[in-house]
Amino acid sequence: MKVKKISGGVCAPKGFMAGGIRCGIKQSSQKNDLALIYSNELCSAAAMFTENKVKAASVLISQENIANGELRAVIVNSGNANACTGKQGMDAARRVANLIAAELSIAPSEVAVASTGVIGVQLPVEKIEKNISALKASLSGDEAGHSAAVEAIMTTDTRKKDIAVEIEIDGKPVRIGAMVKGSGMIHPNMATMLGFITTDADITPYALELSLRRAVNHSFNRLTIDGDTSTNDMIVIMANGEAENIPVIGDLGSGTGDAGSVIKDRNFKVFYEALEYVCVELTRMMARDGEGATKLVTVTVNGAGSEQKAGLLAKSVASSNLVKAACFGADANWGRVLCAMGYCGADFDPSKVSVSFKSCAGEIQVCGEGQTVPFSEEKAKEILSQEEIEILIYLNEGSHNVSVWGCDLTYDYVKINGDYRS
Amino acid sequence: MKVKKISGGVCAPKGFMAGGIRCGIKQSSQKNDLALIYSNELCSAAAMFTENKVKAASVLISQENIANGELRAVIVNSGNANACTGKQGMDAARRVANLIAAELSIAPSEVAVASTGVIGVQLPVEKIEKNISALKASLSGDEAGHSAAVEAIMTTDTRKKDIAVEIEIDGKPVRIGAMVKGSGMIHPNMATMLGFITTDADITPYALELSLRRAVNHSFNRLTIDGDTSTNDMIVIMANGEAENIPVIGDLGSGTGDAGSVIKDRNFKVFYEALEYVCVELTRMMARDGEGATKLVTVTVNGAGSEQKAGLLAKSVASSNLVKAACFGADANWGRVLCAMGYCGADFDPSKVSVSFKSCAGEIQVCGEGQTVPFSEEKAKEILSQEEIEILIYLNEGSHNVSVWGCDLTYDYVKINGDYRS
Repeated sequence: MKVKKISGGVCAPKGFMAGGIRCGIKQSSQKNDLALIYSNELCSAAAMFTENKVKAASVLISQENIANGELRAVIVNSGNANACTGKQGMDAARRVANLIAAELSIAPSEVAVASTGVIGVQLPVEKIEKNISALKASLSGDEAGHSAAVEAIMTTDTRKKDIAVEIEIDGKPVRIGAMVKGSGMIHPNMATMLGFITTDADITPYALELSLRRAVNHSFNRLTIDGDTSTNDMIVIMANGEAENIPVIGDLGSGTGDAGSVIKDRNFKVFYEALEYVCVELTRMMARDGEGATKLVTVTVNGAGSEQKAGLLAKSVASSNLVKAACFGADANWGRVLCAMGYCGADFDPSKVSVSFKSCAGEIQVCGEGQTVPFSEEKAKEILSQEEIEILIYLNEGSHNVSVWGCDLTYDYVKINGDYRS
Repeated sequence: MKVKKISGGVCAPKGFMAGGIRCGIKQSSQKNDLALIYSNELCSAAAMFTENKVKAASVLISQENIANGELRAVIVNSGNANACTGKQGMDAARRVANLIAAELSIAPSEVAVASTGVIGVQLPVEKIEKNISALKASLSGDEAGHSAAVEAIMTTDTRKKDIAVEIEIDGKPVRIGAMVKGSGMIHPNMATMLGFITTDADITPYALELSLRRAVNHSFNRLTIDGDTSTNDMIVIMANGEAENIPVIGDLGSGTGDAGSVIKDRNFKVFYEALEYVCVELTRMMARDGEGATKLVTVTVNGAGSEQKAGLLAKSVASSNLVKAACFGADANWGRVLCAMGYCGADFDPSKVSVSFKSCAGEIQVCGEGQTVPFSEEKAKEILSQEEIEILIYLNEGSHNVSVWGCDLTYDYVKINGDYRS
């Protein structure tokens, strides 16, 4: 795979513009709170949404609008989730789609709507209405447009999370750009994150859906910041075809979308691998920016009898408050690792398990055959004191390996979430 | 039900003695770390153990010894969990049972062994051996014996948790005494708690097992401090029959042990209700003493279509880090309550849900029909600033109500667990 990192974010692919403004939904900050992404051409589109039983109005409207696999624009607000807002909230989300569609002279059904922020407060649509022309005016196809948009989707995020790459498909340069938002409440199945991906690839809605689902399962769905999943999550990808490559049609041979299926369309493989790369990079950025986090913690389960089991065990360890607090304290408390494995419901033989801790400062084994092994506490402390640490677990029962990404649990997590609304 | 609170803890029932000493397993403190409970007579006994796949040696040994429904003594150490310690750990746990059995002139199979503390470090049996006579010598049948024992089972607990009650069964006074340990890592299915209950009731092992299982399901299994469950949990009840009541034989009619089964033995009902009272009181003490906790948070789901669903929803809300952090901050962020309900997998209609917050400062509705309702933020803040708060959820779909107990998530939780071993 030859993936070249480039600048420009969601504006890097041909034919996309983005913009962002402050319309006053975020009352406590002077930052942008309204973003727009727009394509010159109608796009193939695919999306994944929260599985929470309680869904924001924006999620419901966007699910409707993307049903036919086509979009041209995404409008996003931060500062208000428009969730638990009933019929009034649904009307508001529809109104937002209508307003921007009229402004852009496109159909409302070509617009996805996304929201993030506090739950249970009605969306102040009038603020969006008053600023809808300014939002359109903020569109630009360069880095500035992307930057204004990415700022507008942030909530407790402490840094922008974006990327753009270029690949070649049959000699044609093809670009993928992306931005995500999310630093807390993140859990497998994509809780409380917003992600927007643009590409100028010529690709069918079917192939786009297939590649998005597969990439998300290998990236965002292996991220865990805390155990909560949200009402508002969505990730949307739009492909406008302006790269003029031979159309990517996807794996019609198997069609299941499983990670293990044989990929018969060589161009699909190239596109998919680039998309997965983009998603994994963004996932690591999100883990590193977990609310209050000081460390990126990667938990890798090796040698499992199945991928499913490896994932279950790795997620349980990465989600454990006790493991996360031990990572914060650089405490080589590997007993908590075994404990978290033990209560997740996976079947394994504790007496075959080894555990090591690893970082740029080295690697140290702390448990072998389910038992303590002699190790230097000092060295372990040094390894766990780095900003990126890895917990390596060996089951010694099979050949499946899965990594998940998380972070430590800190004083600041409590501080940020103890009074988020005020 | 007429339950009278009395003093004496596990020594309150006739024929029980307890004691505790410091033998040096806890290196960083001068507190007791070895406890003993002993009955003059052989007891009917029942127990429940952790469901963690990784089980401490003490759990495995105690499961063996209680299999016949009889015990006479329990020996407990703190400061070392004797978990993930392999064959050496199993040998150590057996040695502890043999040592105290020889000292008390009883069979090793009449001894339950319990441990709590750090995982993955071999138990220093020689310290226990050297002090085994002193442990026996510390036994007494009064409050002092109980107090020495309860101190010896504590780890990060900030207060002793014990209770004793007296009831009447057919005119005879019958007593139940209990002590528990546990302030963190507590989750449904009894993670990292130790509980020891004594009673002079004359009751069959069958009836004892039935009442313990039922009472634990209505108390400790509805407690959640964080999402972790432990390698070492156990709760043991011993009944020596010295109250000389008409034997309690339990509900032979249904025999399923389900909460809903008809109880045909009237004396069983009296005994069971007292035991449940004891367990619920201890559960509330544990929730209040959650690691770093400043608040006891009770989550009650009312009007559910089934008890199972009500429990699932209530536990999800009480376990959510975001809800717990909001309780700490006295932030009336009810959207997080709905969000936590939404991701637990229970089927319910969000548009029928109401939520109120309640404490000694009053009660306030914050959500109706799944949406925001106007309320005074100031009043809500006052209500949530109390030491005991309740989150009341109304599903409006049925008649089942379940309460679970938890606590807030604080800076001190992170502090305590960031460096527990050092």
